[in-house]
Amino acid sequence: MTSNAAHEGSGAGEGVRPGRLLGRPAVFPARRGASAMPYVKNLWYAAGWSADLEPNALLSRRIVGEGLVFFRQRNGTAVALENRCAHRFAPLDMGCVVDAGLRCGYHGLIFGPDGTCVHNPQGPVPRSARVRSFPVAEQNGLIWVWMGDPDRADRTPLPDYSFLDAAKPTARITGYMHTRSNYEIMYDNIMDLSHIDFLHTTTLGSGSIAKVTPRVHAGDGDEIVIRWRSDGQKAAPVYDPYLPEPGGRVDQTLEVRWRAPGLMLLVNSLQPEGHGEDAQLVSTNVHLVTPETETTTHYFYGGIRNFNEDDAKMNAQRAKAIEAAFRDEDKPMVEAVQANMGHETDILALKPVLLPSDAGAVQARRTIRRLLAQESAALA
Amino acid sequence: MTSNAAHEGSGAGEGVRPGRLLGRPAVFPARRGASAMPYVKNLWYAAGWSADLEPNALLSRRIVGEGLVFFRQRNGTAVALENRCAHRFAPLDMGCVVDAGLRCGYHGLIFGPDGTCVHNPQGPVPRSARVRSFPVAEQNGLIWVWMGDPDRADRTPLPDYSFLDAAKPTARITGYMHTRSNYEIMYDNIMDLSHIDFLHTTTLGSGSIAKVTPRVHAGDGDEIVIRWRSDGQKAAPVYDPYLPEPGGRVDQTLEVRWRAPGLMLLVNSLQPEGHGEDAQLVSTNVHLVTPETETTTHYFYGGIRNFNEDDAKMNAQRAKAIEAAFRDEDKPMVEAVQANMGHETDILALKPVLLPSDAGAVQARRTIRRLLAQESAALA
Amino acid sequence: MTSNAAHEGSGAGEGVRPGRLLGRPAVFPARRGASAMPYVKNLWYAAGWSADLEPNALLSRRIVGEGLVFFRQRNGTAVALENRCAHRFAPLDMGCVVDAGLRCGYHGLIFGPDGTCVHNPQGPVPRSARVRSFPVAEQNGLIWVWMGDPDRADRTPLPDYSFLDAAKPTARITGYMHTRSNYEIMYDNIMDLSHIDFLHTTTLGSGSIAKVTPRVHAGDGDEIVIRWRSDGQKAAPVYDPYLPEPGGRVDQTLEVRWRAPGLMLLVNSLQPEGHGEDAQLVSTNVHLVTPETETTTHYFYGGIRNFNEDDAKMNAQRAKAIEAAFRDEDKPMVEAVQANMGHETDILALKPVLLPSDAGAVQARRTIRRLLAQESAALA
Repeated sequence: MTSNAAHEGSGAGEGVRPGRLLGRPAVFPARRGASAMPYVKNLWYAAGWSADLEPNALLSRRIVGEGLVFFRQRNGTAVALENRCAHRFAPLDMGCVVDAGLRCGYHGLIFGPDGTCVHNPQGPVPRSARVRSFPVAEQNGLIWVWMGDPDRADRTPLPDYSFLDAAKPTARITGYMHTRSNYEIMYDNIMDLSHIDFLHTTTLGSGSIAKVTPRVHAGDGDEIVIRWRSDGQKAAPVYDPYLPEPGGRVDQTLEVRWRAPGLMLLVNSLQPEGHGEDAQLVSTNVHLVTPETETTTHYFYGGIRNFNEDDAKMNAQRAKAIEAAFRDEDKPMVEAVQANMGHETDILALKPVLLPSDAGAVQARRTIRRLLAQESAALA
Repeated sequence: MTSNAAHEGSGAGEGVRPGRLLGRPAVFPARRGASAMPYVKNLWYAAGWSADLEPNALLSRRIVGEGLVFFRQRNGTAVALENRCAHRFAPLDMGCVVDAGLRCGYHGLIFGPDGTCVHNPQGPVPRSARVRSFPVAEQNGLIWVWMGDPDRADRTPLPDYSFLDAAKPTARITGYMHTRSNYEIMYDNIMDLSHIDFLHTTTLGSGSIAKVTPRVHAGDGDEIVIRWRSDGQKAAPVYDPYLPEPGGRVDQTLEVRWRAPGLMLLVNSLQPEGHGEDAQLVSTNVHLVTPETETTTHYFYGGIRNFNEDDAKMNAQRAKAIEAAFRDEDKPMVEAVQANMGHETDILALKPVLLPSDAGAVQARRTIRRLLAQESAALA
Repeated sequence: MTSNAAHEGSGAGEGVRPGRLLGRPAVFPARRGASAMPYVKNLWYAAGWSADLEPNALLSRRIVGEGLVFFRQRNGTAVALENRCAHRFAPLDMGCVVDAGLRCGYHGLIFGPDGTCVHNPQGPVPRSARVRSFPVAEQNGLIWVWMGDPDRADRTPLPDYSFLDAAKPTARITGYMHTRSNYEIMYDNIMDLSHIDFLHTTTLGSGSIAKVTPRVHAGDGDEIVIRWRSDGQKAAPVYDPYLPEPGGRVDQTLEVRWRAPGLMLLVNSLQPEGHGEDAQLVSTNVHLVTPETETTTHYFYGGIRNFNEDDAKMNAQRAKAIEAAFRDEDKPMVEAVQANMGHETDILALKPVLLPSDAGAVQARRTIRRLLAQESAALA
């Protein structure tokens, strides 16, 4: 496991640079938490929505502590390079896209998609002039990056989120949120949905979930499945207006399927009482959590629904409401939790009281620890 | 002495939260100064003015490094709990007051006034679900908190500031200021009043104090008394207009009585020359200093006067002038002093030159060191 | 070498204080980089432009990690004292200039130009009441400070920049910029001018420099000389309008002469093709780099030209264009480079790829290392 000390810890959400004229905050290594541990490397990490990486743009994004720059080759293929020129350590996202790759904005070295320097304005290219490149894949509107052994990337399938492609644009939303918390705290947020009755009372909460003890079981491969079932309850505000009879009772199933490194599929089915299956409201969502640093996290979310699929206005309102709930309710909470943990990143090391709804996220942490141990053993 | 590492170091003044929708800055442990020492625990610390803790409000305040949340029970009794839910470490000040106590805003656990969890929406309350609670007392318009052995709290009387209660509201002012300095630097500020002639020339300074060598002697118990006496001098701008003959000469006594952990009573008496005792102007003030962290301090001040007691307008002006002097003159100075000390918190460790006016504050530091040694010995 | 730990790391540009009413940010020591090294002390450091130190003003400026306050005695002589009162560590720049020297704003001690306390309002001056004073010299419109052995200051001549004095004010510009980067990164910026073709394409760049391999040779004393020569190229936008035939070709020489601790003289000569020597455009500039802390730097620049010397409007535009290029193009880049280096301050310790244009800056670093070793040896 290489040390990433010199790369870690922006703490600031990074995005498409609006231009190189703006000042940049100093980026220093994050202090290691007391129970700090390396990241699992040989897995695909969600790096962004395809739509967010435009031609000719340079997207700077730190992933598992490594500063990367993403861009598209002229043929549209996404590329991820180390965001640090091999020469004077200029961030490559301050340069520009050229036919041959990415040109550094300081002294004009050009790096190709594989990280090799292909042009030096001053003369011959030094043999050692190269930056790290990282395998990138693009599928279902998402860009994925591989931070481990490149040879293993080809053999590892991406998660299949083709339902996102299949949905009408007016029935699909996507979003991004940066949080100042360890990524595992985001597991807790999405895998323990009992919080929606308290943190999201006016939007996502129905008052029915916290009372239900979820069932947790192993799914396919390393998957962890958590399922809440409630019968004869009122629907949450984001669903109620779309019921055949608003204000009526529903039987509800909420299911979260987690897989490493932090890919969560959430399906919410509401079956209105006294109606057939064709009245069922279903919302299918991805919640993808990617460590930026040990104490900051990228969170990509997206979802489709099977009702009012052509209602563009309702879709926009729904996107806005969900964004507001995440930004104004979840983000302050997970960041306050991290703040209350100080430099620690592993909440279990601080001996919290565990409730039944924590079972899923505890198992997810165990899976991560097991994968880390496997990677360590493979290196030994 | 428990380690407070995970709790220390907000560095930001905290107050009644306006709502949970706002972002919270990351709170990380303050780095220990080179001569860092624990705090005296078995003493009452001023935690706030009673009026600042309204019913149904949650007041987050860090005291001697520990993150606390204050609230009032339905019967009005003030309570202080650890500001960190036992479950997922949500700050409890992001919750709300309910009949049974305080409900966490993340997953709905309710904690009673003694810190015990009394309700879990998901089912039985786990036996270990509790947060620390801290003895709280309220007297003379002040809220006090006990950070040490709870059994000793009952046996320790609060300081008697009943003069604050007895005063007419139009003859009383109270205030709060947060400083980015170690609390002992605030001792220096209040116990060495020679600074008023240089730092507060247009408000509190009369030009007569710096020339006087104060007398320092032991008072009741651990009290340290410092007294300045000057005869036939002009009065400071905040007193002069209220003399029988403005611009005239006064005999002045300034007396500060310090006691641990940082409770200072300041009495200022001005006797106009050629007038009887009934012309004496007297101002009686408390200056209460409570460590937030090693490098940040809560400062509560309040006072009454025996002149123009019914003049509400003058009282408001006086409050504003004092607030301005503290905020614009003392606060920048004490914070600059701390900045000049770097991570060090004990100025004596940096070998300053001492002047006669420092005698009181040096003795106060000795008292604190003795009390710390006593507490350490009692634990050994 | 004394430890400067308690002084280092403002990280903020400091200047003439607009008044003591403003809050001051906390100043804590910068964390030492992995390859941290002390500074060369026995050399003159540029501390500011003479014009920036007005009578009665107090200029706070940190130099090689030491917090200094500059002011002028009544006779105009510039003085530099430790910016920390010997008594309560108040920053002396929060005081005021008086006839006898500088009066502390907290308790009124007055320090003379040699740092000795000459007045204590409370009575006799304690013998130990003194602050460090630093030799200061003023020449060619620049203030210089000596951070090492005072006895050696007198024997060390200042650099001769009399050309600055000789120039018409309408043919001269001066400026200051603060950067959040180690000072050696500023060497790279000025000694490797190949960057102007990429970072300053619309202002200073002509597209002709990056292609030229500079010649590097030793100059007088420890001087390092780097020279670029290009023939028959277009002139940069800041020169082109002043050619006898704008848009025409020029033979250009760019020469940088570096000497410790970071004094760079840059001469740019453009000889229009088909014209005699009297048509030559020459710009002569100083670029003076002074460490503030290990990761922040003061940068003073100034220059004169031999063309359009009476054009005040053009001079102002030129000053503005140069300031904009430095602030909007160089500063973001050097700060991003430092950020990409994390806490490291020596880029060579991170094994960058070196290009031909780096030769000068690498030699400058070697000179600094040799001077440091000499100073260490002299102390041993």
